[in-house]
Amino acid sequence: MSQKNNKTAISPTREEDFPMWYQAVVNDAEIAELAHARGCMVIKPWGYGIWENIQKMLGGLIKDSGAENMYFPLFIPMSYIQKEAEHVDGFAKEMAVVTHHRLKKNENGTLVPDGELTEPLVVRPTSETIIGESMSGWVKSYRDLPLMINQWCNVVRWEMRPRILLRTVEFLWQEGHTAHATKEEAVDETLKMLEVYRKFVEEYLAMPLVIGFKPHFDRFPGAVDTYCIEAMMQDGKALQAGTSHYLGQKFAKSANIQFLDSDSKLKHAHTTSWGVSTRLIGGLVMTHADDDGMRVPPRIAPHQIVIIPILKDKNEEANAFVLKHIEDFCGQLKEKCAFGEKISAKIDNRLISSVDKKWGWIKKGAPILVELGPKDIENGVVTYRLRNEDSSTKHQMPINDFLANAGTVLEDMQNGYFNEAKARLDNNITDVDSFDELKKYFSNEKTYFVRANLSQDAEEDERLKEMAVTVRCFVLEAERPGKCILTGKDTNKLAILARSY
Amino acid sequence: MSQKNNKTAISPTREEDFPMWYQAVVNDAEIAELAHARGCMVIKPWGYGIWENIQKMLGGLIKDSGAENMYFPLFIPMSYIQKEAEHVDGFAKEMAVVTHHRLKKNENGTLVPDGELTEPLVVRPTSETIIGESMSGWVKSYRDLPLMINQWCNVVRWEMRPRILLRTVEFLWQEGHTAHATKEEAVDETLKMLEVYRKFVEEYLAMPLVIGFKPHFDRFPGAVDTYCIEAMMQDGKALQAGTSHYLGQKFAKSANIQFLDSDSKLKHAHTTSWGVSTRLIGGLVMTHADDDGMRVPPRIAPHQIVIIPILKDKNEEANAFVLKHIEDFCGQLKEKCAFGEKISAKIDNRLISSVDKKWGWIKKGAPILVELGPKDIENGVVTYRLRNEDSSTKHQMPINDFLANAGTVLEDMQNGYFNEAKARLDNNITDVDSFDELKKYFSNEKTYFVRANLSQDAEEDERLKEMAVTVRCFVLEAERPGKCILTGKDTNKLAILARSY
Repeated sequence: MSQKNNKTAISPTREEDFPMWYQAVVNDAEIAELAHARGCMVIKPWGYGIWENIQKMLGGLIKDSGAENMYFPLFIPMSYIQKEAEHVDGFAKEMAVVTHHRLKKNENGTLVPDGELTEPLVVRPTSETIIGESMSGWVKSYRDLPLMINQWCNVVRWEMRPRILLRTVEFLWQEGHTAHATKEEAVDETLKMLEVYRKFVEEYLAMPLVIGFKPHFDRFPGAVDTYCIEAMMQDGKALQAGTSHYLGQKFAKSANIQFLDSDSKLKHAHTTSWGVSTRLIGGLVMTHADDDGMRVPPRIAPHQIVIIPILKDKNEEANAFVLKHIEDFCGQLKEKCAFGEKISAKIDNRLISSVDKKWGWIKKGAPILVELGPKDIENGVVTYRLRNEDSSTKHQMPINDFLANAGTVLEDMQNGYFNEAKARLDNNITDVDSFDELKKYFSNEKTYFVRANLSQDAEEDERLKEMAVTVRCFVLEAERPGKCILTGKDTNKLAILARSY
Repeated sequence: MSQKNNKTAISPTREEDFPMWYQAVVNDAEIAELAHARGCMVIKPWGYGIWENIQKMLGGLIKDSGAENMYFPLFIPMSYIQKEAEHVDGFAKEMAVVTHHRLKKNENGTLVPDGELTEPLVVRPTSETIIGESMSGWVKSYRDLPLMINQWCNVVRWEMRPRILLRTVEFLWQEGHTAHATKEEAVDETLKMLEVYRKFVEEYLAMPLVIGFKPHFDRFPGAVDTYCIEAMMQDGKALQAGTSHYLGQKFAKSANIQFLDSDSKLKHAHTTSWGVSTRLIGGLVMTHADDDGMRVPPRIAPHQIVIIPILKDKNEEANAFVLKHIEDFCGQLKEKCAFGEKISAKIDNRLISSVDKKWGWIKKGAPILVELGPKDIENGVVTYRLRNEDSSTKHQMPINDFLANAGTVLEDMQNGYFNEAKARLDNNITDVDSFDELKKYFSNEKTYFVRANLSQDAEEDERLKEMAVTVRCFVLEAERPGKCILTGKDTNKLAILARSY
């Protein structure tokens, strides 16, 4: 239920102004803020804690897939970028360029760049070119393949319309890069990592997805095929949540990644790349938050259970007794499991009022909020709120029952968040059979996803652009005979169209 | 024992050429390589695995200290850098400067920087200025203090003489930044984090240290006091392994970090900063490696135990039996503990000869190397080598004994590495009482640390510079009445002087 008349809730509400609500949630939940250099962001502890869990959990799945973590330079020599024509065309307009290596004071005493570089350096927007150069040195024989690399790092793309977490000049991400002996192996890898992303985003972030591949005019610059996972935000818009690219031999040829195959022939490798970014955190907000603030899926929450001590002013002895009890309780809780891992619990000992603490954690979306005072201890109970319920609903449970059930409660909440979002996605895909139907649908004020037959060779369409509608993807493995709504050609392919972030 | 006649060992040896030996170890152990942009490095899986363990283990200690992880922008507006005079003087000569935000093709079709920025952006060499700006927005009242922030990130300093891991243009590090209400609290924090570094470097990296503070002419640019941990490398040179700075109110004044104190007065905060970097990995190499390659202290090793399957060519059934046995064995091993954590074990299933595997892991310095074949299985034993012994020494032990003892063997090896380095440090500090004695000592071909009385107000000394000797630090809490070897003044202070990295 909305708390819109409560000064502590988010203003405006989702209904009133979705974009402003989004910014207010990100701000009030202390996830991140745009600051300092244009379009750059500060990721605050609650947001960075989510990112650390993404690194740990998705990172584990990536390691299990066989890729090894490495680190490559931030700076890419301009000559590398130039080698792959489509790649440079795709990124040239949004690259931060380092041209000098020191500052000096001019005659007025103000600082100016000095020490011009012979060759400008690009701050990496993505690392295909630099990792390709390394691969060309490491790969000599088919025995050196597959080569599977992953990197967690910052990247920079000079966005003209920055939007916090969704589209920032600098963002954090992981980028996987692999080289294989054959096209078949490389395509398998591309799809395997797409499935890793699907699993992670659906099972850990509780964000249901449409899985597909991009139309040819919307592929990653230099890719042969771009696969993607697309999520539906609460305002009905699509968010591209991750991509996995089969790069063919294009980058292998431009960087000269060649190997002697078992048939003694020299061949170019087939490469892939795949990535997800801090944009996922923006997606989490627009999928799960409500008018009270963020709701973090328990599996990914930095603290799954937050305990607020309820202390009596000035009775130091009684307070010490409560705090000791709470520490013991928290210790026992941390031995319990949810999602096959130890529960993460935190005591909030800050010197602010417990009401401020309560609203702070509601806005942050901590899954379970426990308020523990002398009365609870006397009665041997735990008083708690669940973030997936109305904020005014409290529960009580005997301590031992709470300890025994906490894991299940967290797992149920995770499932609830997923099911809620899954129902929204499933109930809001509208099938259309013609461009007119499509046009009519997108004349509605609030729009979601449209599914329609589309020919794979259809071109980028001005009419869609005018409606601010994009082809999100061709749905993977979905087929239905029909006529392309853009070209009228017969096609089995089904695409999802939507407005998007 | 040296393997210098063995083609698989490191060439040159430490004795022959220490700097070249260092580079060969870093290269042969596949820790990192200088590549691509000038002075930048690629950190390879074995090196990055060590860094991930540093992040996890030191990161845990930092979190326990109360600091929260956040992320701040890579780019610092030039105007921020300008605000603290000493700071800008210290860093201006080594800053990468972004001046443009896109590339365009000129008339010849070659790329040139385009879209000049109104204000150039500096790629962060350290983040005091940008974090200070954020703090000034977050700190209003004494209740907001202490504010304790930590960041894991990349930084860039344009080194004119890059050296892999020790001095690179880009490196990875953590930087802590805290703000406090009083000088006393800030100094306490500075010393607390120094102790966190000491504990981590001595107990996890097995590198014994001298703990101290820098002379006034060698403080961090803008700091009031710089504390440091100094390690002795095998060639006798000192490596500054970490620093912790008390910044006074200098950065608080330049960034306007003010708070309303409990006495209702507006005051400037006292700030600190502290950091360690990928340089630690270079220190690990120069402390522990030998003429066979790297020796990674078990507590920090990406894999503590590596298992090489010994397979019979072409007998697929026998091979499958061995591999199944090895997987079971590895699974059991991973349930055992060392250093209070589960043991990290890996099966090396690459398609290369087991001799190549063996030498690869010796060079990488994996603590325990198990070779398991049909005979071992038949006899119910484990055949293994320990990296702290001669590479030709093999042991055998019944499987269950090995499983029961592996943790202790790893812990003993860790202690052995520390004690070996500790003896080297303790036995190689020479006390001198005059500048002449110092000069005589540093005329030796191989030199270590010198301890001497030094006055805290002694200035940077040309005579030391000529000998390439530096004051590493005043030893913390060490006092001995005497005369300053540079000024002749009476002083209780003792300093360590050495050649250094």
